[in-house]
Amino acid sequence: VKYLITGISGFVGGHYLEYLALKRPGVKIVGIDLSRPDTSFLNKSFREKIKFHKGSLLDKKLITNVIKKTKPDYIINLASYSSVAYSWRHPAECFVNNTNIFLNLAEAVRNSKSKAKILSVGSSEEYGIVAPANIPLTEKSGLNPANPYAIARVAQENLSKIYSDGYRMPVICTRSFNHIGPRQKDIFVVSSFAKQIAEGKLLGRKKIICGNLGIIRDFIDVRDVVRSYDLLLRKGKPGEAYNVCSGEGHKLSEILAMLQKKAGTKLPVQIDRDLIRPVDNPEIVGSCKKLKRHVAFRKEYTLSRSLEDMLAHWEKRMR
Amino acid sequence: VKYLITGISGFVGGHYLEYLALKRPGVKIVGIDLSRPDTSFLNKSFREKIKFHKGSLLDKKLITNVIKKTKPDYIINLASYSSVAYSWRHPAECFVNNTNIFLNLAEAVRNSKSKAKILSVGSSEEYGIVAPANIPLTEKSGLNPANPYAIARVAQENLSKIYSDGYRMPVICTRSFNHIGPRQKDIFVVSSFAKQIAEGKLLGRKKIICGNLGIIRDFIDVRDVVRSYDLLLRKGKPGEAYNVCSGEGHKLSEILAMLQKKAGTKLPVQIDRDLIRPVDNPEIVGSCKKLKRHVAFRKEYTLSRSLEDMLAHWEKRMR
Repeated sequence: VKYLITGISGFVGGHYLEYLALKRPGVKIVGIDLSRPDTSFLNKSFREKIKFHKGSLLDKKLITNVIKKTKPDYIINLASYSSVAYSWRHPAECFVNNTNIFLNLAEAVRNSKSKAKILSVGSSEEYGIVAPANIPLTEKSGLNPANPYAIARVAQENLSKIYSDGYRMPVICTRSFNHIGPRQKDIFVVSSFAKQIAEGKLLGRKKIICGNLGIIRDFIDVRDVVRSYDLLLRKGKPGEAYNVCSGEGHKLSEILAMLQKKAGTKLPVQIDRDLIRPVDNPEIVGSCKKLKRHVAFRKEYTLSRSLEDMLAHWEKRMR
Repeated sequence: VKYLITGISGFVGGHYLEYLALKRPGVKIVGIDLSRPDTSFLNKSFREKIKFHKGSLLDKKLITNVIKKTKPDYIINLASYSSVAYSWRHPAECFVNNTNIFLNLAEAVRNSKSKAKILSVGSSEEYGIVAPANIPLTEKSGLNPANPYAIARVAQENLSKIYSDGYRMPVICTRSFNHIGPRQKDIFVVSSFAKQIAEGKLLGRKKIICGNLGIIRDFIDVRDVVRSYDLLLRKGKPGEAYNVCSGEGHKLSEILAMLQKKAGTKLPVQIDRDLIRPVDNPEIVGSCKKLKRHVAFRKEYTLSRSLEDMLAHWEKRMR
């Protein structure tokens, strides 16, 4: 069995590799990304069998050649321009690049008559502005994308359905909610909290800088994310979209308090107005019933465990 | 007052020019298209004041320069790759070109800080596969685009909302239903009927070749279309989408019978299987209540009048 993972060098890509090394050590892996992946956390024998192609998914020739040569069974498309903030500054570039990444991949598969199953990774951003009455969001909730990034994700999902229903290519879509987990960059809120608290404990930081602590989000551990992706690839229904989420909502203030308790800190909080988004949903929580029903997904990481691992990651880096 | 019309040389562009010549003869007009417009049906003085730029909307530099130089008050974006059949053969090209046309235009307006009002022309194809219970379609009906062309139109409408709500640019969207009217090409069903019947009457044609006569569609005269576009530009709400339709459903067999009666022919009908689409909606009818309520639109062309004018057009061409 051969996997092709685009965007392999990112946060999710690294965890996908770790998952495969642990649970499916016999598979072959081909990766594409702009830079070489950090694989220091993998054992050497597994690390050595990853075949890496350096380049961009915007390069049609590259992706076509890779697919023709490697003949993958499964393709996980993690490559994207995924910053919402960037998409507001460069709407056309963000939209065009994200949809081109997907189209280049899908056309390469179609034109090479590959039978590969494709996981088209989307985002809870596709739901856009959400009425409180629609929480938890199910896959039948309306899509009202409210930024250029989210619009590209909706287009990608619509195109996926066309490739699946019209061209009979097995494409399975996700609407993935907020990720958490060790190694996540500190531009993401929970990882930023964990890092600041670790700094408070180990390096003498005196306060925590944060945005709006009142919003409620659905955080899912990246290790549950990659496991659900693998289940979806093997058992998901082509042409369908799946929420990938924990099904639980937590207020950011609650998460901050849990982290402080675990670290044994009592750092005061300072609100930075620049970290508050002009328009934001007070609550985003997904339903994972379809994921459970179709592919028998059960989450393995509790919020408590995820937060402990994130704290431990930052503390280890600081020691 | 200055108008910029992209895709000015097409069927709708020609009728827009005719409308302006008749109802708003004082305006200035700048047009862009791949080929020069046929303006033989306009009076000479009006014809001479149309400034034409030959080129593609895919050429960012061209459209940026035209907007900077001409400073239009109103922009009507008629340029598109609008064949559904072509979009199935070339999905990526159709999607990319249509969304790039719109983005190049919108970015040129944004970057030049133009205050132009933009009419973003969309399609009833955005509704996709429609449940009979949802007829007539209102602007609140769900969008389930079912071909690459329709997906690009949905993306364009979503992007229009972003430019309108996020960047405060006045963009008004249409979901335009099937057009009819004189000068329409005979690749469109009603014009094809009218042409074949005129051939029967004048050139001895013995039968009419057609597809599925049982489907019901909402046909609106192109002259009502362009008048509604002008009303929308002047009085429509930025960020909103409007059905542009007649609000009436007619079976194709009924339209064929009306045409034969008007022409005094009784040609037999032959079904061509190649003209029947693999997947098609039995009925597509829109509600034009929002268009009536927001911009006081009243349709001026009855179906009977449209069909007479189309027959007369083909008969004139044959004589």
